[in-house]
Amino acid sequence: MSTITNGVDVPTLFATLDAVKAAPEAAKFRFTAMNEWKSGTHSRSLIHGFYGVGEQRTHERAFDLDADHPAVLVGQDSGPTPVEFLLHALAACLTAGVANVAAARGVRLTGVRSTVTGDIDLNGILGLDPGVRNGYQNIAVRFTIEGDAPPEKLRSIVEQSRARSAVFDVITNQVPVTVEVD
Amino acid sequence: MSTITNGVDVPTLFATLDAVKAAPEAAKFRFTAMNEWKSGTHSRSLIHGFYGVGEQRTHERAFDLDADHPAVLVGQDSGPTPVEFLLHALAACLTAGVANVAAARGVRLTGVRSTVTGDIDLNGILGLDPGVRNGYQNIAVRFTIEGDAPPEKLRSIVEQSRARSAVFDVITNQVPVTVEVD
Repeated sequence: MSTITNGVDVPTLFATLDAVKAAPEAAKFRFTAMNEWKSGTHSRSLIHGFYGVGEQRTHERAFDLDADHPAVLVGQDSGPTPVEFLLHALAACLTAGVANVAAARGVRLTGVRSTVTGDIDLNGILGLDPGVRNGYQNIAVRFTIEGDAPPEKLRSIVEQSRARSAVFDVITNQVPVTVEVD
Repeated sequence: MSTITNGVDVPTLFATLDAVKAAPEAAKFRFTAMNEWKSGTHSRSLIHGFYGVGEQRTHERAFDLDADHPAVLVGQDSGPTPVEFLLHALAACLTAGVANVAAARGVRLTGVRSTVTGDIDLNGILGLDPGVRNGYQNIAVRFTIEGDAPPEKLRSIVEQSRARSAVFDVITNQVPVTVEVD
C-alpha cells in the first residue's frame, strides 16, 4: 500500500513531527530574499539559501522573482506587483496546508482551487488621503475543494489549514519589521 | 533633457498623481491571484487580471508562480516557500518606492540592493507549542543604496518609501482576511 497521499509522504510528515518534538530547536528557520533594483519599479529577488534544522541550506535551485508595476501604475509590467505576490503567498500557504492536513486525515483530494482578492485604495500610498491606509483594506479567499470525503469534512480541512497558516498569521496579525540602511 | 530618472517617467508619475487627485475613485484597485493545487505542498498561482482606474484590466502577460516546500519540509522544492514570497514582496515594494521617491526628488540612483530575512519557529505551524505563533516572529530589511546624493538624503528616501509601502503596512499592521469554501 502506498504511503503517499495527495503527493504527501505521510510517514515522513509524521517522522518530521516526531523529530521536532524530540528536538524543538530544529524548527527554528530563517528565510531570506536578496533583492536588486533593475529600473523604475522593476526589481528582482534571488531566493536560494535558508537556515533550518540546525544548519544553513539551499533550495535545489535558485529562484529568481521579478516584480514591477503595470503601465497604469507607471511601471513596465515586468512582473506581478508586490501586493499580488502577497495574495499568491496566502493562497499557496493555505493550499499546502490543505494537502498536508488532508493527507494526515487520510482524505484523498482530487482538486483544490482558490481565488484570492485584495482591495486597496491607492490614495493611501500616493499620500493623497491621510485617512486611507497604504496596504490592503481587506482580503478574501474562496476555495473549491474536491476529494473522497463529505463537504463538511473537506471544509474542516480548510479551516485547520487556516488555523495553522504562517502567511495567514503574518497578514492578519502584526509582525515587527526593521528597515536599516548600510 | 530626459524626463526619465531611474527608469521612472517623472512627468507621467506626477500626471498620475494629479489624475487621482481629480478623481479619487480611480485609485480603487482589486488584485487577484488564482491558485491551483498541483501535488503535496506544490501549487501554482496565475496572476493576470486586476481592476483599477475604473475598469477590469490585465497585465501585458499572465504570470505563473510556483510555490512548494523544500525536502526538509516534506516538499518537492518546486518553488520558493509561501513565506519566502512574503519577503520578496516586501523587498520589491520598498525598492519600487525608493526608485519613485528618488526620481520625484531628482536623485539619480546607481544601485539599490536589499536583503530581507524572516525568523520563524515551525513549532507554531506544526502545532507542537501553543506559545509559538504560526508566522514570522520578526523580519529584518537591510538596504544598500547608491546615487548622486549624500548618505543622509539617500537614507531619507528609504524612510519615505517605508512610510508609504503597501506591503510594509500589510505585514506590520492587520488586514482582515475571510476564507470561504464553496
